[in-house]
Amino acid sequence: MTYSQAVLNGDRLALSRLLTQVENDAPEGRTALVELFPYTGKAHLIGVTGAPGTGKSSLVNQLALYYRKTENKRVAIVAVDPSSPFTGGAVLGDRVRMRDLAGDTGVFIRSMATRGSLGGLAQSTANMVQVFDAAGFDVIIVETVGAGQSEVDVARLAHTTLVVEAPGLGDDIQAIKAGILEIADILVINKADRPGVEMTEKALKSMLELAHPTQHVFLHHGTYLNVAAPETGLQKQLWIPPIQRTVSTEGKGIVELAEAIARHVAHLTQSGDWSVRERARLEVELDALVREELVSRFRRDVPQKQYDSMLEKIIQRELSPGEAVKLLMNGRLK
Amino acid sequence: MTYSQAVLNGDRLALSRLLTQVENDAPEGRTALVELFPYTGKAHLIGVTGAPGTGKSSLVNQLALYYRKTENKRVAIVAVDPSSPFTGGAVLGDRVRMRDLAGDTGVFIRSMATRGSLGGLAQSTANMVQVFDAAGFDVIIVETVGAGQSEVDVARLAHTTLVVEAPGLGDDIQAIKAGILEIADILVINKADRPGVEMTEKALKSMLELAHPTQHVFLHHGTYLNVAAPETGLQKQLWIPPIQRTVSTEGKGIVELAEAIARHVAHLTQSGDWSVRERARLEVELDALVREELVSRFRRDVPQKQYDSMLEKIIQRELSPGEAVKLLMNGRLK
Repeated sequence: MTYSQAVLNGDRLALSRLLTQVENDAPEGRTALVELFPYTGKAHLIGVTGAPGTGKSSLVNQLALYYRKTENKRVAIVAVDPSSPFTGGAVLGDRVRMRDLAGDTGVFIRSMATRGSLGGLAQSTANMVQVFDAAGFDVIIVETVGAGQSEVDVARLAHTTLVVEAPGLGDDIQAIKAGILEIADILVINKADRPGVEMTEKALKSMLELAHPTQHVFLHHGTYLNVAAPETGLQKQLWIPPIQRTVSTEGKGIVELAEAIARHVAHLTQSGDWSVRERARLEVELDALVREELVSRFRRDVPQKQYDSMLEKIIQRELSPGEAVKLLMNGRLK
Repeated sequence: MTYSQAVLNGDRLALSRLLTQVENDAPEGRTALVELFPYTGKAHLIGVTGAPGTGKSSLVNQLALYYRKTENKRVAIVAVDPSSPFTGGAVLGDRVRMRDLAGDTGVFIRSMATRGSLGGLAQSTANMVQVFDAAGFDVIIVETVGAGQSEVDVARLAHTTLVVEAPGLGDDIQAIKAGILEIADILVINKADRPGVEMTEKALKSMLELAHPTQHVFLHHGTYLNVAAPETGLQKQLWIPPIQRTVSTEGKGIVELAEAIARHVAHLTQSGDWSVRERARLEVELDALVREELVSRFRRDVPQKQYDSMLEKIIQRELSPGEAVKLLMNGRLK
């Protein structure tokens, strides 16, 4: 039996092995991705992102428990953790999580500590998500650490993106937060029992009002407004990111958070944004694969020697990088 | 007169305009990059990175002032600031800087707020650096905000990378710090007059010892050790990142920091690592340009219609992204 068949049959060991093949970009992994693709497109993809210290992982755990116990959904967690090899962050994270979710076959947790070329992590994550989707997991939670491009990539991947904050992490973070607001569908203030929670919420609210200036008078977080799009005159549903308070270590606010997520899913479906996001996600994936294939064909066609000699000429300032590229391309097309 | 000639003649207005052309990837910019390339390779590239709230920008200001006044060097600053369009962070940053450095023609400051495709920012920054290098700036400081891939890219670009920390930004940041240690040539604890500075230094020291386990007994920060490389038996100079304390708002510790930077330059030269870094940087640049050219040739060769119809088949799950790429490539080679 092939990996794909075993995974479709619910074989956990095969699933685990296939994920490794996919992460390593092994031929078996590539074949399986093609075979599994027709079975994808059903899962709800939730991205969870935020700075270290916000208690993201514990929040993800609580959400997974909620979906298991209350809604009897199968949940996969992909923890994208580019921590240093020194800390062994990914492995430790797994162990801590396992305590709560151990023995439940409806939950599958996978950490990725891959560090590599630009875009490599995003591509690997997208592939993992496809495998879990085909394997019949109803909810797939992708968790990322850090701030920057990786968050944007998660947002591209997810139907619903949660941005997690916590009180007392410093006001200076606001400049970065403003950028992150653009990708947030739901804002979570975790550790909401800590002092400073009011200030954090106030800061987030002002930033939301800056981000959605025309709506801020009616600001009614977590519901959507019908506003006329000036160019078409049509009614367009707008989603204003709600702010949810949680204390994940005590399980507080999780039900309300899950309800906000459900409202977002309803909004995506009713507004047609679900298909818009699906299309955008698949387009990003196709683009990434095209780039990868172009580079690997180039490497196959251009001898390493020729490439090295061009590099040497650049180092000697005999050629600019731009000129070298032209020569490499033309030599190849001959 | 061409842009390149004007820039080589020291024309500031031409420099400013050329930087815009280069940032926009305009044809004039591309031409000038080729013309200017033979004049590059002289500047010392310093990367400065760290979390928001560490006072990075003020530190960069002080360093620039030091190099101007004490060493009479020409200094360029490239501030890579991917903040949100809401905050207008880049523009504000320019204004604050200008107060200290205004009217000095030996200093040129450029902010980039570019947000775009993966790798785009790194490529733009590399191009800007080339222009400044050819224009005869002795020191080029590239400052980045945030944590993650962008830091790694800065490190690839710079001869000397400074990682800036500050006391009291939260202990949870340590997991990320560990990753950043790998790229740091010099660690700076800015705002060193704040409480908690001892703890921050202690934490950094333990992490350094983890990162350089074999040397930690002799740990003598900021000097280099001669250790026998087991595989070759040869003596290899090792650089242990020193920890420098500064209070940039008061100009404290700047001289000592500049001295540490000078020691690092001496180490790079004596160990041969200067050329190793130059080569690595130019290789990354060549790679990025090859990728870009491959994609643009692909877009030129493959009709948008064909691409869109493939995407539609993927959305309908009739084709996997991997199969679609193969069809697109083969259709193109026919």
